[in-house]
Amino acid sequence: MAQLSTQPYKGARDFYPEDKRIQNYIFSTWRHVVESYGYEQYDAPLLEPLELYAAKSGQEIVSEQTYQFVDRGGRTVAIRPEMTPTVSRMVAARRQELAYPARWYSIPNLWRYERPQKGRLREHWQLNVDMFGVETVDADLELMLISYDIMKAFGANDKMFKIRVNSRRLINIMMAEYLELDVVQSQLMIKLFDKKNKVTPEEFRDQALAIFDQEQAKTGLKKIAALIGAKTMGELPKELLATSAVQDIQALFTLLRERGVTNAVFDITLMRGFDYYTDIVFEVFDTNPENARSLFGGGRYDGLVSLFGVQPVPTVGFGMGDVTIKDFLETHNLMPKPESTTDVYMIVLGNALKGAQKLARELREEGVKVAVDITGRKLDKQIKSAVKMKVPFMLFVGEQELQDEVFTLKDVAKSNEEKLGFGRIVTTIKDYRRRYVDDDDL
Amino acid sequence: MAQLSTQPYKGARDFYPEDKRIQNYIFSTWRHVVESYGYEQYDAPLLEPLELYAAKSGQEIVSEQTYQFVDRGGRTVAIRPEMTPTVSRMVAARRQELAYPARWYSIPNLWRYERPQKGRLREHWQLNVDMFGVETVDADLELMLISYDIMKAFGANDKMFKIRVNSRRLINIMMAEYLELDVVQSQLMIKLFDKKNKVTPEEFRDQALAIFDQEQAKTGLKKIAALIGAKTMGELPKELLATSAVQDIQALFTLLRERGVTNAVFDITLMRGFDYYTDIVFEVFDTNPENARSLFGGGRYDGLVSLFGVQPVPTVGFGMGDVTIKDFLETHNLMPKPESTTDVYMIVLGNALKGAQKLARELREEGVKVAVDITGRKLDKQIKSAVKMKVPFMLFVGEQELQDEVFTLKDVAKSNEEKLGFGRIVTTIKDYRRRYVDDDDL
Repeated sequence: MAQLSTQPYKGARDFYPEDKRIQNYIFSTWRHVVESYGYEQYDAPLLEPLELYAAKSGQEIVSEQTYQFVDRGGRTVAIRPEMTPTVSRMVAARRQELAYPARWYSIPNLWRYERPQKGRLREHWQLNVDMFGVETVDADLELMLISYDIMKAFGANDKMFKIRVNSRRLINIMMAEYLELDVVQSQLMIKLFDKKNKVTPEEFRDQALAIFDQEQAKTGLKKIAALIGAKTMGELPKELLATSAVQDIQALFTLLRERGVTNAVFDITLMRGFDYYTDIVFEVFDTNPENARSLFGGGRYDGLVSLFGVQPVPTVGFGMGDVTIKDFLETHNLMPKPESTTDVYMIVLGNALKGAQKLARELREEGVKVAVDITGRKLDKQIKSAVKMKVPFMLFVGEQELQDEVFTLKDVAKSNEEKLGFGRIVTTIKDYRRRYVDDDDL
Repeated sequence: MAQLSTQPYKGARDFYPEDKRIQNYIFSTWRHVVESYGYEQYDAPLLEPLELYAAKSGQEIVSEQTYQFVDRGGRTVAIRPEMTPTVSRMVAARRQELAYPARWYSIPNLWRYERPQKGRLREHWQLNVDMFGVETVDADLELMLISYDIMKAFGANDKMFKIRVNSRRLINIMMAEYLELDVVQSQLMIKLFDKKNKVTPEEFRDQALAIFDQEQAKTGLKKIAALIGAKTMGELPKELLATSAVQDIQALFTLLRERGVTNAVFDITLMRGFDYYTDIVFEVFDTNPENARSLFGGGRYDGLVSLFGVQPVPTVGFGMGDVTIKDFLETHNLMPKPESTTDVYMIVLGNALKGAQKLARELREEGVKVAVDITGRKLDKQIKSAVKMKVPFMLFVGEQELQDEVFTLKDVAKSNEEKLGFGRIVTTIKDYRRRYVDDDDL
C-alpha cells in the first residue's frame, strides 16, 4: 500500500493547539459580543438536501462550488456551503411557536469547492448572526452595531475599516426604473457592479455597454457615471433621491451617527452576492490599501423563510468568516499570541510523582488547570516541554517540597520565581488569569 | 417545484437554542474536566482521504457506514466517521517537533451511515481525549481518571456506572495461546465476545462452536466457560495469570484504588470494536439494568501514528459521544434545565426605545448580556417572549424610569420584583450568575 499522507485535505486546515488557540480567540470574541446583545446559539446538521441551496443561494455556488453527492439512501445531499438556508428552514419549521424577536447565532464549518487562495479556503468557519421577526430599521441597526462592536472588540479602530451600506430595494429601482433594464439585463448589471473594483474603468465601461441595447446605450453610460459619482446620498440622481428606499437609508445613518458610528458610508455600487437580500445590505470593508477588500457583510432578507411554504418572517443577518478576519487581524497587527489554556505545568523531581498527582488534584479542585509531567524525564526536558506548550507557570515538585509544603512557582513570561504555599499558588495563578481576561475584555 | 422540507437530514439533529443549551452544557462539562488536566484543543478538516480509514478503522465502518464520495478533483474522500485516524495523522506530521507528553482534545462532529436508533444517530459530536508520548501505565491511569471525573462532573455517582477494563495484549494471548486459534479464528472470536451481551448463552455457544475446528472444540467451550466465569483477575486460568499483561492490569487497579475509584472492574469479555488498540482497553458502562450498555471507551493504541511512515508514538485515548451521554443523563435524571445565556430581557414601555438602548449599552459594558425588545409591542407580548426564551431577569424601562434612573428588575424564577438603580441591577445579575456557575462547578 502507498504510504498514507500526513497532510490535511487540500484547501482545509489542521489546527494544532497553537492554531486552535487563535481560532478560539476569534470564536470567543464573536461569542462575547453577540451574547452581550442577547443572541443565543443554535446548530444544525452538516448535510442538507442539495435543493435547499438550488432554491436561493445563487447558481454559481450550487453548480460549481458545492460539495455534493448521493448518499446510500439515494438522496442528493450537499455539505453546507452557507448557513442561511438552514436557519431559514429551522425558523420555517417552528414559525408559529418561536418567541420573537428571535436572536440567533451559530459558528458552523462551511465547505466550498474553490481554488484555495488568500482569504478563501475550502473549509472555513463562519459566525452567522440573525434576528427574526422585526420589520423596522432598528433590527438593521442592531446587526450593524454588532458588526461594529465585533471589530472594536478585536482591537480595530474606526480608520481600519468602513461599513458600506446600500439597499437592494434601491438597486432594483435603479436597475428597472432609472437605467430601464429588463430582468436579465439587471442581473448582468448587478454582477458587473459587484466586480467594479476588480476591473479597470475601461473594462467596466465596455462591459456595461455590452449589457445595454442600442437605445439605452445613448444615455446609459452617463446615468451610470452619475450613480458612481454620487459619494453621498444627496448627490444621487433626483429620481432615486425621492424614493422611500433612500429615506430608509437616511434614517439608518441618523441612528448610526447617534450611536457613535462614524465610519459607515453609503455606496451605491455595493451589491452583495446572494440573491436573497430584499432591502438594506451592508459590508465591512478593510480600508488598508494593501488589503482593500470586503471582510464580511449581510443585510435584510425578508423572503427566505417563506420558501418553505409558510408566511414570511422579516429577517436581518450577517456572516463573518474566520479566515478573512484572521487575515485582517494579522494585516493590522491585532492578533494576540494566546498562551496555553493550561495554567501550570508541574515539573516532577525524583520519586515525587504520587505526591505531585495528589497536589495536582487539590489544585484542580480550586479551579486551576494543571498538566503533570508523568514521564520521569530529566528536569531540563520537562522544562522544555512546558516552554514549548506556552504554559504561563511552572511548579517544581520534589519530595522535599512535598514535605515542606512549599513549592517554587515560576512565572515563565517574567522569568520570576517564588517559593509559595498552596493558597498563594492558587491566588497567584487566578490573579494572573483574571488580569489576562480583563485585558482582553472577554 | 416541490415544496422544500423543513425537516433536518434523516438521523441528524437541528439544535434550536433550547437544544443547543443542553449540548453546550455537555460540551462545557467536557472542556472543564479535560482542561483541568492540561489538555488543549485541536481540530482538523471534516474531510479526509477514504484510505485513512481503510487503513485501520475496521472494515465494517469503511465498507458500510462511511459517507464517501469523489470530489471535483477526483479524490475519494470521506466525511470523518471518527477522529482517531486524523489525530494520528497530525501527530505523525510533526512527530519530531511536538512537546511531549502531548495532551490533546477535540469535539468534532462525526458521520456514520447507520439506521438511526436510540443512542445512535448519523451525526454526533464526540469528545476525543488523547495523550501522546507516555509508555507507562500512568498515562492509562490519567485517561481513566478523566473519564471518571467527567462522569462525576455530570453528577453521576459510583453506582450509576462502572469502568470495565481489559487488555488487548491479554486478549491476543488468550486467543492465540490459551484457545489456540489462528488469526482468522481470533478475529471471529473477538467479534463474538464483543456481542456477548446481545445474544443468548445458547447462541453464543453455537457460534463459538462454529469458530473452533473439530480438535479445538473438544476443550474450547470449557476453556471459554473458565474465562467468562472469572469474575476477578485471580480466577483467570493459570496460563493467563502469569503473563505481564495481567500484572500490568493489576498495577493499574492498585493505582485506581489509591485514587478512590471503586467502580472499576476487570472484564475479560471486553473487546472494544476498533482494531488499533494494543494494550489496556476500558469502557464506561451504564449499570442501570434498563439501559445496560456501553457509554464510551478507549485504550492504548501505540501503533497508529507509525502507519504514516514514522516511528511509533505511545498513545492512550478515549472518545465520548454527545448522544449517548445525553441519554445517560436523562435516564438517571441528571440533566439540568439550562436557562438562556442572555441575562436580562429589556421590556420597553411607550417611547423609551432610544433611552433603553443607551441603558442596554451601559449594561453590556459592565458585562451583562442584554436583549432589548425593539418591537414596540404591548407589554404582555414582550413579557411572553422573555418567558419563552427562559431569560432569568426582565427589566422594565419606560420614560419615567429613565428619568428617575430607577428600574423594576424581575427575577423570573422567584417571581420577585425589585426597584433598583444601575449599580444594583448589575450586582444582582452578576451575583445570580456567579451562584449559578458555582452550583454547576463550572
